[in-house]
Amino acid sequence: MDLWFTESDMKTYGLVFKIKKTLYVGKSKYQTVAVFETVDMGRLLVLDGLVMSCEYDEFAYHEMIAHVPLYTHPSPENVLIIGGGDGGTVREVVKHDIVKSVDLVEIDEEVIKVTKEYLPILGSAFDSPKLNIHIGDGIEYVKDTDKRYDVIIVDGSDPVGPAVGLFSESFYRDCYERLKEDGIMVAQTETPYDVNLRVHVPQIYKNIRKVFPDTRMYIANVACYPSGMWSFAFATKKYDPIKDFQGVRYEKDGFKLKYYNDQIHKACFILPNFVRDFIDG
Amino acid sequence: MDLWFTESDMKTYGLVFKIKKTLYVGKSKYQTVAVFETVDMGRLLVLDGLVMSCEYDEFAYHEMIAHVPLYTHPSPENVLIIGGGDGGTVREVVKHDIVKSVDLVEIDEEVIKVTKEYLPILGSAFDSPKLNIHIGDGIEYVKDTDKRYDVIIVDGSDPVGPAVGLFSESFYRDCYERLKEDGIMVAQTETPYDVNLRVHVPQIYKNIRKVFPDTRMYIANVACYPSGMWSFAFATKKYDPIKDFQGVRYEKDGFKLKYYNDQIHKACFILPNFVRDFIDG
Repeated sequence: MDLWFTESDMKTYGLVFKIKKTLYVGKSKYQTVAVFETVDMGRLLVLDGLVMSCEYDEFAYHEMIAHVPLYTHPSPENVLIIGGGDGGTVREVVKHDIVKSVDLVEIDEEVIKVTKEYLPILGSAFDSPKLNIHIGDGIEYVKDTDKRYDVIIVDGSDPVGPAVGLFSESFYRDCYERLKEDGIMVAQTETPYDVNLRVHVPQIYKNIRKVFPDTRMYIANVACYPSGMWSFAFATKKYDPIKDFQGVRYEKDGFKLKYYNDQIHKACFILPNFVRDFIDG
Repeated sequence: MDLWFTESDMKTYGLVFKIKKTLYVGKSKYQTVAVFETVDMGRLLVLDGLVMSCEYDEFAYHEMIAHVPLYTHPSPENVLIIGGGDGGTVREVVKHDIVKSVDLVEIDEEVIKVTKEYLPILGSAFDSPKLNIHIGDGIEYVKDTDKRYDVIIVDGSDPVGPAVGLFSESFYRDCYERLKEDGIMVAQTETPYDVNLRVHVPQIYKNIRKVFPDTRMYIANVACYPSGMWSFAFATKKYDPIKDFQGVRYEKDGFKLKYYNDQIHKACFILPNFVRDFIDG
């Protein structure tokens, strides 16, 4: 029997994965959570029919959303992660000795539970002593908290369903307010290349740019996302990702990473013309 | 009625395209040639069930295979294209005033005919006065010709079927011999990211490196190829793509390109760790 997974929002173009086994399907308060065993790309975490992470290439997304801001800020001691319930971003952030505390605000407790049980590669850092997990709405959290952060990482799902508010101007404004005066926000900002999904991207950048004085896009290649090109917004009050790259710390840490390196840190900000025109046009 | 196209070599993971209409299917002497009208990505050229070019994003592949060598060599007057029957590479190469003559060696006349009729965006430069079309086997051509080239571009299809010899050491050696003493060869070298297709890549680099003193990989993001990451070998006798970048000529030409720019010229050589390890490991 051949079982193929296709994303629920696939209109005219997209990826399909051959599946060996359905490991888990459950309905949480917010969404349908599923884990599939693919034939040769490891396990796939799927929320409401959309691929969140695939064991084969999750390192690309998670290394790039974490290390680009953390190797730009000279002392990222306090980090806030909004979303990120699959644990991949936490895993990369807690690697940094300089990071003293990480707050993770995930709306859906089920995602954490399912990841812990079925995706240990992703969930390996949930027991870090630096980590505080808050189950709740990230939008409410940044509105209400008194804490101030060096780095905020917005690792939400797509701008449909529970995560739609994570792409609004008011949310980005609250993030701005919760950052220290030299803080950096990085947010996943969908794909600028997929013919159907790219429609969201220009408005996301307009929203962030109304709030932050300097916002740039950087990109990473993620095989399990349609078109293979994924983008992130680097929104900063002060530090420049190129000029302020923390090369000495990067060398000293010497992490064994699969995607990110010191040259990628700079090259990822170089955009093909059509992408630049798409967000700036 | 819903019609979806999937590639014939898709084993466990790959892309699907929703099709509006089949415009052409025919059997040439070498392969099955087909053109589909997709719903919103323009037309798709398919050889033996494998996507060659899609109107939506063919610029990424063709700009990157042409402009990277042409903006490295200081005077690329004579260019040889092996394969390239869809015309996209020719279109980019003849844009350069400095290029005086282009030899295109395509084994399958049908590909050129079908492109001219159904894919005019790709076939727009077939009537260039600089262009000489040779219908024949590229492998035989580089063995026999007395001509010497500044730049050879190997724009063949995948290492299955008629194009398999375009990835062999002996073919690369003949290309080396047909280059002038400061010549550059660029070849498409498949995807290093797709879980099924990447298997070919390390051997291709071993083959090229037995012949050329300096061979580097560069990458481009092509949405219609699985994983979205496509690679090219830059094999050179003398010039360095970074140090010898012809910035003055690039500025003067001022082409309106959709993917390639002066910063991409350098950034495309920066590889994620897993890609570097894959070809060098």
